[in-house]
Amino acid sequence: MTTSDSPVRVLVWGENRHEQIEEKVRAIYPDGMHTTIAEGIVENLGQRAQVTTTTLDEPEHGLTEEVLDATDVLVWWGHAAHDEVADEVVERVHRHVLAGMGLLVLHSGHWSKIFGKLMGTSCTLRWRSEHDQELVWTVNPQHPITDGVPNPIVIPEQEMYGEYFDIPTPDELIFISGFTGGEVFRSGMTFRRGFGKIFYFSPGDQDFPVYFHPDIRRVISNATTWARPRRERATPTLLRYELGEYFDGQDYRGPIEEPASV
Amino acid sequence: MTTSDSPVRVLVWGENRHEQIEEKVRAIYPDGMHTTIAEGIVENLGQRAQVTTTTLDEPEHGLTEEVLDATDVLVWWGHAAHDEVADEVVERVHRHVLAGMGLLVLHSGHWSKIFGKLMGTSCTLRWRSEHDQELVWTVNPQHPITDGVPNPIVIPEQEMYGEYFDIPTPDELIFISGFTGGEVFRSGMTFRRGFGKIFYFSPGDQDFPVYFHPDIRRVISNATTWARPRRERATPTLLRYELGEYFDGQDYRGPIEEPASV
Amino acid sequence: MTTSDSPVRVLVWGENRHEQIEEKVRAIYPDGMHTTIAEGIVENLGQRAQVTTTTLDEPEHGLTEEVLDATDVLVWWGHAAHDEVADEVVERVHRHVLAGMGLLVLHSGHWSKIFGKLMGTSCTLRWRSEHDQELVWTVNPQHPITDGVPNPIVIPEQEMYGEYFDIPTPDELIFISGFTGGEVFRSGMTFRRGFGKIFYFSPGDQDFPVYFHPDIRRVISNATTWARPRRERATPTLLRYELGEYFDGQDYRGPIEEPASV
Amino acid sequence: MTTSDSPVRVLVWGENRHEQIEEKVRAIYPDGMHTTIAEGIVENLGQRAQVTTTTLDEPEHGLTEEVLDATDVLVWWGHAAHDEVADEVVERVHRHVLAGMGLLVLHSGHWSKIFGKLMGTSCTLRWRSEHDQELVWTVNPQHPITDGVPNPIVIPEQEMYGEYFDIPTPDELIFISGFTGGEVFRSGMTFRRGFGKIFYFSPGDQDFPVYFHPDIRRVISNATTWARPRRERATPTLLRYELGEYFDGQDYRGPIEEPASV
Repeated sequence: MTTSDSPVRVLVWGENRHEQIEEKVRAIYPDGMHTTIAEGIVENLGQRAQVTTTTLDEPEHGLTEEVLDATDVLVWWGHAAHDEVADEVVERVHRHVLAGMGLLVLHSGHWSKIFGKLMGTSCTLRWRSEHDQELVWTVNPQHPITDGVPNPIVIPEQEMYGEYFDIPTPDELIFISGFTGGEVFRSGMTFRRGFGKIFYFSPGDQDFPVYFHPDIRRVISNATTWARPRRERATPTLLRYELGEYFDGQDYRGPIEEPASV
Repeated sequence: MTTSDSPVRVLVWGENRHEQIEEKVRAIYPDGMHTTIAEGIVENLGQRAQVTTTTLDEPEHGLTEEVLDATDVLVWWGHAAHDEVADEVVERVHRHVLAGMGLLVLHSGHWSKIFGKLMGTSCTLRWRSEHDQELVWTVNPQHPITDGVPNPIVIPEQEMYGEYFDIPTPDELIFISGFTGGEVFRSGMTFRRGFGKIFYFSPGDQDFPVYFHPDIRRVISNATTWARPRRERATPTLLRYELGEYFDGQDYRGPIEEPASV
Repeated sequence: MTTSDSPVRVLVWGENRHEQIEEKVRAIYPDGMHTTIAEGIVENLGQRAQVTTTTLDEPEHGLTEEVLDATDVLVWWGHAAHDEVADEVVERVHRHVLAGMGLLVLHSGHWSKIFGKLMGTSCTLRWRSEHDQELVWTVNPQHPITDGVPNPIVIPEQEMYGEYFDIPTPDELIFISGFTGGEVFRSGMTFRRGFGKIFYFSPGDQDFPVYFHPDIRRVISNATTWARPRRERATPTLLRYELGEYFDGQDYRGPIEEPASV
Repeated sequence: MTTSDSPVRVLVWGENRHEQIEEKVRAIYPDGMHTTIAEGIVENLGQRAQVTTTTLDEPEHGLTEEVLDATDVLVWWGHAAHDEVADEVVERVHRHVLAGMGLLVLHSGHWSKIFGKLMGTSCTLRWRSEHDQELVWTVNPQHPITDGVPNPIVIPEQEMYGEYFDIPTPDELIFISGFTGGEVFRSGMTFRRGFGKIFYFSPGDQDFPVYFHPDIRRVISNATTWARPRRERATPTLLRYELGEYFDGQDYRGPIEEPASV
């Protein structure tokens, strides 16, 4: 953990496949979407954040134990290659989130292995990629993630994501989006899992320059500050406490008492 | 209370002013909006409900102690004359809700005295009455209020209600509406207050025949069943319990102990 | 699905290991804990339920596709042998819950594979098995799961489960328990996942005759009625909808559009 | 509003009656409970807070429009004289909370007019003042209000407050207390109302030196930081927006359109 006075250490993870395969995506995001997302955080937080990026094609997808240990908040963008993310890495990220690492899941990351594992549901939804306008409405104006954000945020062209979005009830519903076609979507939500804080934010797509939008960049930046851990990373653990003893727990030794050895 | 096998006793309260003053409203609802709403409940619940109506212009607005005692669920439609509802009657309805009576607040009832008193907020919102299409999306498909309802419900013409809707976070968010203009609205929500269950449902307006819409009628009918009390009406009370005594509480005798009299 | 007028089809799954290994458990539950739990449901629901049992040692743990298809609500008790439950069966149960099957997870089931998969967290807690008294307090008296239950339920002797319980925020917090040692525990909670409804209820242990307690039996019975599906079982699915089309979705064909073949 | 870098302006309001009437209370809190509460905030926040106090007996209870305008977070302690708080002042405080002022309601303030008005319920509970031990357990360890607080907080002697506490479901349940008698209480909870943030915290009583307890002082201090407004104070307002117009709303002109004058 870093203290709240030190810069938040943000790692933007990008799948980085559309940018290599599709020219139209490369035209929008010539340095990769992860780079654009990272630049948006730097633009807003400046010295208050230390932002790095990594991608799927790095060894261990760039998400080694050491890297995660040094990450306060992980930002996740994936789409075409969810299945290529190794289960072992997903387990590792999951463990770090439960121990306190913040996680931002963006847009098509709703169908990533890590999000599904944290939610416990299918995370399916309704969609259409046809130049809908998206309006992102604030329904929780007291929340720090909405600081400095207009109501609504206007995104001229976007992929439509619509309900029913199969997720658990969020801890906080912050944004609801409306689309040209009349569809609605819970587009900004927080979830607590273990000691970690998670923010799902749906605006953002490979086919539209959404990650250059100043309000979208502001939301993502606010969310990294919000999601940073407030305690030392610690694994939730099953512990036994004697009667009248509240602070000194004993490790679990199994479901059935062993007879004393002879 | 009636048991869950007996018909739910529903009272539809209508302000009944637009119908008298505006010919266009009278053309849509010749027998009054309250009558149409009541007919929709009978259509769906048949023998499972006993539905009556009353209006603002009745003595005590038709909401005497005796009437409320015999009501399982009160359905509230008001708009032009919120201020004419006597504070004393509002207090009475409030007391019955806390004691267990169900309450459905429809559409412009968001600005009624009784809803404001139960919510504690301004209950303001954004609006426009200009023939928007409203789509009512289900975000809680497991909820009994959504039984038999398509996703979305399509309402061809409706007044727009949009966010930010200044209400407390609901217990359950069940419907979100999207409008032609791109606005969104949390249009179906439940709230618990005291021992009473409350459902706010925004579709429905004096200028459009929304209370003839079969899906809207179905939602209102489902909600009356959901909101009916499950226990004898009882007033939440402050009680003192001795150590080790859990069921026999003593009434409150004031904040400062009296010295024993001499 | 069965209709709400037909008996709810309940399957009680028991690990059935303590009863075989430990004489003191066998003395309390001579027919197995699953049998006692099942009898409590029959006692309360009578003809309104069709209750069967199965155990870990059955082929496929008694949880074949056919069995689950014919189950409205699955009740889960496990403790010593969580690891012996085959991953394939866990996947199957998970799929059925997302498709609408109700699930009751009892006591030490908090650490079962299926509960962990649905929650996404470690589900760890603090504990002590030392004859604490447990008082189960109702904090949601409007909820059908509390019908006919005193406040508090008094359990003379119980294992202590205490906070911090590492679970997602529940949809509804219904019971909170207090123990002799001063510990507290969120002991009755609901969660929605996919189209399924889940109730976690902590009272009940192999070392104490808690499943003979009439109030505990009543809660479990109420919960089976509450958790039964209200719709035909259906798998949440990702679907594409054209502009203006709300009901006829198209299956997903992959993340990147294929060029037309030559 | 002050910015998040400037000191939070906290006003501690004390009823200050027990201290004058009861010698045992004066012995514990010789300078008044409000002074002790204020000192605890200064102890923790130092330069990060500007803390002042006022009491019931001041003109307008010390809560004029000017004073509230200059207050970021109001801390409320009352008990014996809830009824003496003028309705006009309650309206004023309510208006400021909806406009964004933070509010901390302590202990017996659960029955104050302002808390009841914001909650919409009776705010009744079960109680006993008999030297119970209170353990305050954290159930939301990610929340900033829990920073630096042990789990549990141990209070050697306290009044017992128990469930059922008749309040709306909180936005966030942060602490649950357990008492010697086995009672439990949702003792730390947040609520959003209008643009304001509210924290209710039950530990603290006139008969015990709870406001000298370092952990209790820490919680109250954390909560003032959490509750401070993040936006300029603004009154939630009903506004009409034309189709395609999202930022320039028109004031409400009444429920029925006037015919054009001749």
